[in-house]
Parts: sequence; C-alpha cells; structure tokens
Amino acid sequence: MPDAPTPAGLLDRLHALLGPRGLLTDPADIAPHLSDWRALYQGRALAVARPADTAEVAAVVRLAQETGTPITVQGGNTSMVGGAVPDESGRHLVLSLARLNRIRDCDPVDMTMTAEAGVVLKTAQNAAQEAGCLFPLSLGAEGTATIGGVLSTNAGGNTTVRYGNARELMLGLEVVLPDGQIWNGLRRLRKDNTGYALRHLFVGAEGTLGIVTAAVLRMFPRPRDTALALCAVADEEAALGLFRRFRDRDDSAVRAFEYMSGSGVDFCVKHIEGIAQPLSDRAAHYVLVDLASPRPDAGLRDMAEAVLAEAMEEGIVLDAVLAESEAQAQKLWRIREEHPEAQKREGASVKNDVSVPVSKVPEMIRRCSAALVELIPGSRPVPFGHIGDGNIHMNLEQPPGMDPAVFLARSHDIMDCVNAIVRDLDGSFSAEHGIGRLKTDMMEEWRGGAELDAMKRIKAALDPAGLMNPGKVLP
Amino acid sequence: MPDAPTPAGLLDRLHALLGPRGLLTDPADIAPHLSDWRALYQGRALAVARPADTAEVAAVVRLAQETGTPITVQGGNTSMVGGAVPDESGRHLVLSLARLNRIRDCDPVDMTMTAEAGVVLKTAQNAAQEAGCLFPLSLGAEGTATIGGVLSTNAGGNTTVRYGNARELMLGLEVVLPDGQIWNGLRRLRKDNTGYALRHLFVGAEGTLGIVTAAVLRMFPRPRDTALALCAVADEEAALGLFRRFRDRDDSAVRAFEYMSGSGVDFCVKHIEGIAQPLSDRAAHYVLVDLASPRPDAGLRDMAEAVLAEAMEEGIVLDAVLAESEAQAQKLWRIREEHPEAQKREGASVKNDVSVPVSKVPEMIRRCSAALVELIPGSRPVPFGHIGDGNIHMNLEQPPGMDPAVFLARSHDIMDCVNAIVRDLDGSFSAEHGIGRLKTDMMEEWRGGAELDAMKRIKAALDPAGLMNPGKVLP
Repeated sequence: MPDAPTPAGLLDRLHALLGPRGLLTDPADIAPHLSDWRALYQGRALAVARPADTAEVAAVVRLAQETGTPITVQGGNTSMVGGAVPDESGRHLVLSLARLNRIRDCDPVDMTMTAEAGVVLKTAQNAAQEAGCLFPLSLGAEGTATIGGVLSTNAGGNTTVRYGNARELMLGLEVVLPDGQIWNGLRRLRKDNTGYALRHLFVGAEGTLGIVTAAVLRMFPRPRDTALALCAVADEEAALGLFRRFRDRDDSAVRAFEYMSGSGVDFCVKHIEGIAQPLSDRAAHYVLVDLASPRPDAGLRDMAEAVLAEAMEEGIVLDAVLAESEAQAQKLWRIREEHPEAQKREGASVKNDVSVPVSKVPEMIRRCSAALVELIPGSRPVPFGHIGDGNIHMNLEQPPGMDPAVFLARSHDIMDCVNAIVRDLDGSFSAEHGIGRLKTDMMEEWRGGAELDAMKRIKAALDPAGLMNPGKVLP
Repeated sequence: MPDAPTPAGLLDRLHALLGPRGLLTDPADIAPHLSDWRALYQGRALAVARPADTAEVAAVVRLAQETGTPITVQGGNTSMVGGAVPDESGRHLVLSLARLNRIRDCDPVDMTMTAEAGVVLKTAQNAAQEAGCLFPLSLGAEGTATIGGVLSTNAGGNTTVRYGNARELMLGLEVVLPDGQIWNGLRRLRKDNTGYALRHLFVGAEGTLGIVTAAVLRMFPRPRDTALALCAVADEEAALGLFRRFRDRDDSAVRAFEYMSGSGVDFCVKHIEGIAQPLSDRAAHYVLVDLASPRPDAGLRDMAEAVLAEAMEEGIVLDAVLAESEAQAQKLWRIREEHPEAQKREGASVKNDVSVPVSKVPEMIRRCSAALVELIPGSRPVPFGHIGDGNIHMNLEQPPGMDPAVFLARSHDIMDCVNAIVRDLDGSFSAEHGIGRLKTDMMEEWRGGAELDAMKRIKAALDPAGLMNPGKVLP
C-alpha cells in the first residue's frame, strides 16, 4: 500500500503544538502503537500525538477536524477486540492519552477520585487504598489498562457481580467532543437529574463520540473480612445453584464468583508452574467463591462453611477447600487468572466473550460445548468466567496435534457457532470486551433496525465528519 | 385563548385505532390529565390517548408525526416539576401509558422483572415481594408513580444510598422512538457491551427522546435483618459524621440515611396526628438510620448500638432511640414521610431539590439557611432528605402570618438564592426531580455550552420534528 498523503503542514503544526515529547514520528517509536497485544491487527499511522493535558487534546482534535484527519484514541492498548489500533490506511493520527496521568483528587469523605484518562487502573486502585478506600474494578490487564480505556469500553472483570461494570463506578466525565469543545462534566454527585445522561453515552462508545480525558470514580469502604473457597461442583446447574445460595444469603458479600471447567484447570496444572490439582480428586466443574465485607465481624468464613455444608449435603458441592491465609487465597485465585496463559501454552485457542441471563448459563455452557466439539471434532471447550454476571468466556482449544493455523482459520465459524446458541438464549455477543474492529460486522445482525439506526443518528449528530475512531463499533 | 385547530381527521383516526376505551375527548375525562398535583401548571390538550399495548403506542406516535401533533407523555402524573402535563396551547395530545400495566415476567433466579411502563411502582414492589425478592426503589408517590415515569425521570428516593437511582435498577428497555419504530432492548443481561448505551439515554430524558413502554428491572434479595434508629445529632457535621461511621462500617447495610432539621420535626409534631417529640429533648438536628441485610444473622441491631455508643462518647450523637419493633420503626419513619404534609399545613413553602458532594452537605445546609432567612426575614428553612446522597430538600416555610401569595411570589428568588450557593459548592439544581417545565430556564446557565449543545444535537437527531414532550428538559 502506498503511503497515504499527510495533510499539508499537519505534522509541523502538531509539533509546534505538542513539542518533541508530545509527538512521535519515528517508525520505531510508533510501532508499539500500531498493533494490538493479541496481534489480530497491524495498522499504520501518520504519527502518535501524546498531548500533556486536556487543552492539548482539544487542540489536536480541532486540528484533526480542520485537516480531515481521522483519530484513533489509545489508552493502555489492551483491547481484546482491536479497539485501540489504527487501520491499514496510514491516514490516522494515533492520539495517546498516556501523559494525562494525574490523579487530581482522592476524597475518602465523598468516596470519589478524579483521575485523568491515562492513569493506569492499578495506579488508581493503589491511590484508593492509600486513602483507606477501595476502587474495586479489577481485571487481568489492570497493570496496563487505563481509566480512559476501561471507561470507554465499559470494562467488567471479576468484581462486576458486586460493584458493577466501569459504568457503575463513574459519577462524572471530562470529554473532548469531536468539534474540539471541552465538556467539563466532572461532577461528584450521587444524584443529578439535569438533562440527558451524556456521561453514560461516552462510556462504552470506544472513543467514537469523543475523547474521555478525566473521570470522577466511585470508591468504597475497603474489605476488613474476607473468605475464599474453591469448590468442585456436580455440574453446571450446581455451579449456578451455589451462586444463588451465596447471593441470596448476602449478595453484598459476594465479591466474585467464578466458574472454571475441569479442562481449564487441567491446562493450568499441566502448564503453569506452582499450580497443582487443588482438590484430592479431579473434577469436571469448579467454582471460586470470593467473599468480602467492610465489617471486621462479618463472619464470612462461618457463613461460607455453613452454605457449603448445606450444599454438600444436597450433593451440589462435591468437595471444597477454604483458604487458610491470604497467601493460599492468592494461590487459588491464580488458577483462575492463569487460564489465558495455560490455554496459550496448550496451543491455539479462540475466545468468545458472551453473556446470557444468569439462569441460562448452564444450558449455554452445555449446548455450546457440544456444538463446538461437533463443529471441530477433538477440539476442547474451556468455558470459564463470571457466572454471577451470566458472562462466560466460552473459549475453544484446538484439537491436539492440529496445525494451529488450520484451527484458527475456523475462528469465525467457532464464533458463529457460539453466537447462534447465545442468541437463542437471549444473550449478547460481547459481554465485557466491546466491539472494537473485531465485532463491527456482527452489529447489523444483532443490533440492526431501530437500535443501530439510533446509534448512527447519534454518531452523525456528534461527529458529522466521522473522524473519531472510524471503523470501530459501528459497521 | 382560542381553541387550537385539531389536525383534520386526527381524532377520528385515533378513535378508530384505539377504540372508545383508548381515547378520552370529554373535557371532564381529560381534566385530571391537564394539571400537575402541585398545581403549578394548568394545560390544555386535544385529547388523551390511552393505548393498550406497545404497538398501539407506536401507531399513535406515527400518527402524531404524520399530523405534526406534539405529544405529552404521562405516567402517574406525580412529577414535582410539571414534567407530565401539556402546555397551554391546546395543540398537544396527551399519551397516557396507564393501560400498559402488565408485569410480563418476574424471575427470582435472574433477579429480574419485566414490567410495562404503566405498572405502578408499588405494584412492582409487591410483585418482587411475592417472588421472594426486593425491588428497592421507594419514594413518597410510589402508590401512583409508574415504572415508565420513574425511569423517564431517573427517580431517586430513600434507598438510593444503597441501591442507586432508577437508572441503576434498570437492565433493559423497550422504547417507541419518535419515528414510531419500536426498539426492543429488553435484555436481562448484567454485561452487554455492544455499542452506545441507548438505554441510559432514555432514562432521565423525560420522554423527550422517545417513549419508554417497558423495562427490565433488577431485583435483590429481600432483607431478613433490619435495625432502625432515630438520633439527635449535635449539628450538620455530626449528621454527616454519623453517616460516615455507618457507611464505613458496612456500606451495604445502610438502606437509608435521612437528615431532618428540628424545624421540620416540630412541624410534624404540631400538625400530624400521632406524631410526638421522638426523644426526651427537642433537638436541632436529627438523622434516621435505616439498616438492612439479607443475612438473618447480620446482627444489625448490635452494630447500630456499637456505632451509636461510640458516637455518643464523641459527642456526635446526643440521644437516640432504636426501634423495638417493625411498628415502632414505621412510626419513626412516619416523621420523615410526613414532612411535606406538615409543611403544607404550616403554610406556604417553596421546595428546592438540590445536591452537592456529600462532604459539602453541612456547609450547604448552613449557608442556605442563613441566606434564606436574610432574604426573607422570619421565613423558616426546613432542610431534610438524603444526606448520604448529598441530596437535601432545602425547603423554605413562609414567615408566620405572611400572605402565602406574597411569599410564593418570591419562589424564584428563593430558588435562585439556594442555587447560587449550591453552584458554588459544585452541586446540582435538580437532584432527583428532573427538569420538567419548572427548571428548563435554568438549563442554559447550568448546562450551557458543550453539554447543552450536545443534548440539543441528540434531540434533533432522534426527534427532528420536535414533537416528543416539547417544552420539557431543553430550553
């Protein structure tokens, strides 16, 4: 592909605006910004702009509008769906929020933190902890993902069952609109009914309606009592049944509730150093029950023991271990967290981030597993994830010995196979990863008609020139 | 004012479409739909359409578009800000959702309920209870307000501190768009990141972007342990300090936390039968602490006693009573609930529904009270409400003996006086009541610039003819 023409004077003007630290043009400097970590896409770009503050972001956006330059917005670049990389045209300017990395305030009375878009999620968690509070959003990429990114994609993760998605953890936003105006919506209010909920429109819009530059985040009291159990359960229904028992006993104590299949645990035992079979017998289905409360006297361990004893009597739980220490709890969590790495070492795998109503999770896992094995004989379903949210990563590991390339060539067949069942169960084809580039072609089928029509009208109203993250979200 | 011309054939076509039960044209039948319960406005209308289902709503909307007829959407007509009544032009068709009153499903596994717009809030609460669950939204008008109304206004209420506003209790929507398309977004999913959050755009839009016809609502485990305390506290800071102590001990146990001033309690004692001074000494500041947990063994009474004992030692709490029974708890709650009625009986009063960051509530109450008494000597501030949400109803009772009309003529001065202080404290001029007709003229000052500009673009994109609830929300 020939180099796209750079709009006349654009780079000089950006350089004058942002200074040498604020503009990357050297191919070696730009390279890390052009591909996603899953290596699904390899894009090109005119340059990478690294504005230092909100005013500079707005100036870059105005310059882009003036010159008709498409902008690809980038946070930590940890998207699972190619949401943060430019396309192959070479016409895009990548706009990195990495330098907007200040925590503007952190208030344990209001229980709010105002953080700029480039603040790394882990940094925000730490700041909350230093203030004696908890910022609960937690996910695998938290050491790299940024506040702007997790809000723009409405990230989920392990604690959604208790604290909600990124959306529910946000009270206010500062956004640079496509026309270069800065909207200061950094309100620290729990109640504010004054017109349309713009802040909710930008959350999950993946940068296609404007650029989130800062946010007011909600904090919570930090846990002072915890309990963690790993359980072997009889089947998928038993996994759901155990979730219901804990939720109905004390929904606010269930910080996370994760399902793992025997196959996934087996891969961890096989490939990950330090992970052994967690219970005396290998099981086909496991759940990780993570309880937490700010009350030091919550008695969560006793509660867990009581619920598990009852569930064992009923044959729902086959075996269980309660962590005796924080170290053991972390060791048990590691089995869940190493699932992606273990699957990678076992061979090629295809990821499916789907959700269904909670009640339909068992049927979804069973039907998808059977259909996938029928589609690709010898392949190994590895369902795992957030059963309490109805969000299971319905992943598929290649058959042993198959050429990975041959298996991966079936990626779309595999996704279609899962999606057809998920659709039949009133589910969603993207639970927590968003649309990015990977799933734009599914939007018409799933969201077409009145819904997609309204989305397109909103996009055209706010970004008439279509320069904000083109190629993402909307088909 | 002369009668506005009715578009030719409109009423005949509506009659053919909706049948005799579905169209009210008799002035006596229409009258209750034309004024709000606060009697702030007296409108006129062509007729009242009462469609029986979503398809009929869509047909009415298409007919309105075809004939250029503005629509005023009406639920339970309990708006505090004239949000559900037509203007004085006589050109509007009132569209009542009262007949869309089915609860389509109620599932204790998914913890979701699908309710149509016309379902009364209390009915939804009862349906949840029958399913062994809790639908926590609770407010004074719950016996009349409808699901469509509470979502379209993002209603708050007493339990927001624990469960969030109406917005947080909604997972999916069915909406008739301004062009008459029906969007079925009735998803029962906890995670669904597939494009723009349209559902959040319609919540709080007060019917100006489309008509909510049904919703998927979240339910919660029902409380099995409760505790209620009424406390006299030293001052406004002490009220906030006590909230912090309970919140930090166990935020999920704080179902409601209400502030009342001595003046408000005095009015209740004076005017409301069955209400006596709740503590041995009259106090200047009270809080109502309402704790609840699904755990039968949560020990909330012990927790309340421990926190209160500590707070008494520190001089934060002066006196307190813990309810010994459900009946006594209701009796204590009644003091809070009768505040509006007691103020009415005492004379004319002006309501202010404002919010500030939680940490600024004490300053807000003090500064507003002083400024109001300076503005109207002899007037009596009656601040009360949801201190945990930063949302205080900063009401003002007339001076004894003043002509109510003279006092009410100062309404806008009073609101301006409160709003100026609220604004200085980074607050909002409408916390939970919305904009309606009453506050549209405040939008430019508070939300003008990038924010109002974006709202207007969205309105024009979805409702280009401007026929959906014109005169509401946007100036």
